[in-house]
Amino acid sequence: MRIDSLNTPCLIVDKVKLLNNITRMRNHTASLGARLRPHVKTTKSVEIAKLLFDDGIGPITVSTLKEAEFFFKGGFRDILYAVSIVPSKYRRVHDLMQAGAEIKLILDDIMVAQSIIDYGIQHQVRFDILIEIDSDGHRAGIRPEDPSVMAITRLLHESPGANFLGYITHAGESYNCTNIKAIKKHAIQERDAVVKCAEAAQKLGITSEIVSMGSTPTATFSEDLTGIDELRAGVFTFQDLFQANLGVCQIGDIALSVLTTVISHKKDQNRIIIDAGGMALSKDRGTAGQKNDRKFGLVCTVESGEIIDDLIVESANQEHGIITSLSGRDVDFSRYPIGSLFSILPNHACMTAAAHDEYHIYGEEKEILHIWPRCHGW
Amino acid sequence: MRIDSLNTPCLIVDKVKLLNNITRMRNHTASLGARLRPHVKTTKSVEIAKLLFDDGIGPITVSTLKEAEFFFKGGFRDILYAVSIVPSKYRRVHDLMQAGAEIKLILDDIMVAQSIIDYGIQHQVRFDILIEIDSDGHRAGIRPEDPSVMAITRLLHESPGANFLGYITHAGESYNCTNIKAIKKHAIQERDAVVKCAEAAQKLGITSEIVSMGSTPTATFSEDLTGIDELRAGVFTFQDLFQANLGVCQIGDIALSVLTTVISHKKDQNRIIIDAGGMALSKDRGTAGQKNDRKFGLVCTVESGEIIDDLIVESANQEHGIITSLSGRDVDFSRYPIGSLFSILPNHACMTAAAHDEYHIYGEEKEILHIWPRCHGW
Repeated sequence: MRIDSLNTPCLIVDKVKLLNNITRMRNHTASLGARLRPHVKTTKSVEIAKLLFDDGIGPITVSTLKEAEFFFKGGFRDILYAVSIVPSKYRRVHDLMQAGAEIKLILDDIMVAQSIIDYGIQHQVRFDILIEIDSDGHRAGIRPEDPSVMAITRLLHESPGANFLGYITHAGESYNCTNIKAIKKHAIQERDAVVKCAEAAQKLGITSEIVSMGSTPTATFSEDLTGIDELRAGVFTFQDLFQANLGVCQIGDIALSVLTTVISHKKDQNRIIIDAGGMALSKDRGTAGQKNDRKFGLVCTVESGEIIDDLIVESANQEHGIITSLSGRDVDFSRYPIGSLFSILPNHACMTAAAHDEYHIYGEEKEILHIWPRCHGW
Repeated sequence: MRIDSLNTPCLIVDKVKLLNNITRMRNHTASLGARLRPHVKTTKSVEIAKLLFDDGIGPITVSTLKEAEFFFKGGFRDILYAVSIVPSKYRRVHDLMQAGAEIKLILDDIMVAQSIIDYGIQHQVRFDILIEIDSDGHRAGIRPEDPSVMAITRLLHESPGANFLGYITHAGESYNCTNIKAIKKHAIQERDAVVKCAEAAQKLGITSEIVSMGSTPTATFSEDLTGIDELRAGVFTFQDLFQANLGVCQIGDIALSVLTTVISHKKDQNRIIIDAGGMALSKDRGTAGQKNDRKFGLVCTVESGEIIDDLIVESANQEHGIITSLSGRDVDFSRYPIGSLFSILPNHACMTAAAHDEYHIYGEEKEILHIWPRCHGW
């Protein structure tokens, strides 16, 4: 079976590009002496995650407890849940731990730290916990210089309901960089934020087992990871138009695309309509603020995978994508008859995959090698 | 069980509001003498679709063949697939017909009409087909004055591989209206486009069994449906912030929201972080171009369902939503401790529901009445 016989819209993945993306990041991480703890929120696929490790299993990062459960069932044990834990989720984590999972949690608040310790003592369980550090004001976490970092460190370290593991940060602001020099600066800032905390803890006699940083841009352009144990990154596996705009990859590295069928010609409007709309492509417009606005995705041929002229998905209704020429040139409708196929490169791979149930992994002859399920929901 | 004990993020639906929205549209449609053929792409729920009909089953509209299969399995037979059919999908439609479904298809191209007729003759099946008319340049369809409308009508009417059923249009441009007067104008234009085609066909001696129009805005504000058999609309079931901005509903009518937990306080940035991000809320920014930009959704209390001060979801990472004060006023963090709940009103109900597996339908005491699955994928 070849990709041109699939139901559309669907996700297709070029296995050669996928493996190249994985190898590149693995080699880079290893060359810097850090361990890769890939973020599986991008692919949500056990089979793809297994490609990231020599023996098929290793430490991973997840964004939901559903992913934690899914990957644990798929054979992964060392799982970092990289979203601040809250009391209503202790029970579900505890269940996973009792089943044998080594779940690592993060938090950024002393009341939560006390609360999880209390739960741990009450239920005779020790939660493995990292403190989330805010290295760039992007999202959650405590500023490294905030005295509460050491207060929580001490509290976790001294309590029987918790194991203090270390520090974690995510340089989300690297997504707003406009050049590689700026990304490299973010990578240093990200590293320094957590390494500084680990050093301060060491002065108190508290050793950090894990000092963790990561985002695909900063992981890609880090040059010195002194003091860092683990690098987290996810989107590098597939790459996308956003990362290409950042300079993290070439457009030719993007392994994921959406296979779609031409369903209507609107010659009076110079538009082609496809069966991949906002549901299949996502409504992510992350490239809107970047140097090249990719609207809802670039249009490629299925056979060569090359970008077609200047066709772009200009807008997206729920199940209709509207393609037009970016330059305003006349679209050559005869080349793209109704029923013919395109593949659409995603703005943001994580979001584009969201509404799909599975990946169709294809080889060099466009033959389907695997159909791999993905997890979704919470 | 009450909604405040649910895992977050998740979809919650106020049953009273849901039923009110349904009753309002049913009464309005009936008062105009048309049949309602609800578009189930919004809810993708068999149980909610059943609330739309006195005897629990009636004609529906779907946006994917997966929905067609799902709703057929759920007891629905009369199913209009309202996205242009293409040859690669004939087999799947044929299978559904052989199983007993009455599938109605749409197309807007004479080559496709000929191709489906050929398939029908070859496989001894008659496909029920409507011609899609473009009433406002929004998406697919043939302009009503285009001679190919009558050419396709004749072709379908005369061929043993097809039943010509009639005409269908969708006033997608009504979503860009800025006042109700403009929506009413669109409703008339939408009606006239298909009624005109049916009249022209009648002159050729060809009777249209179904003349169909619909979008939630034009369905809501139609005042005269002379010549129209069926009204299609979907989002009215839940309503959303986009429709409220259009004037189609009040914010208080919105039945769907996303239940979420406060997971972090960023006091230095006047931000609250929640566990509903772009995945749970969708990246739809439809309100960005409207009179009130609702960013990624308005924030409500769970108990009263009322909008809180001027809190808004300012940005959305994959699993983190970032709430701030729209006016810049200081957020009162003590009122919203970590672990407390919000419900977030959606910009666009159809897209917000996309990554979720189920609805939690609650009653007046916030008790969970039902957990209803939704279909997804293609």
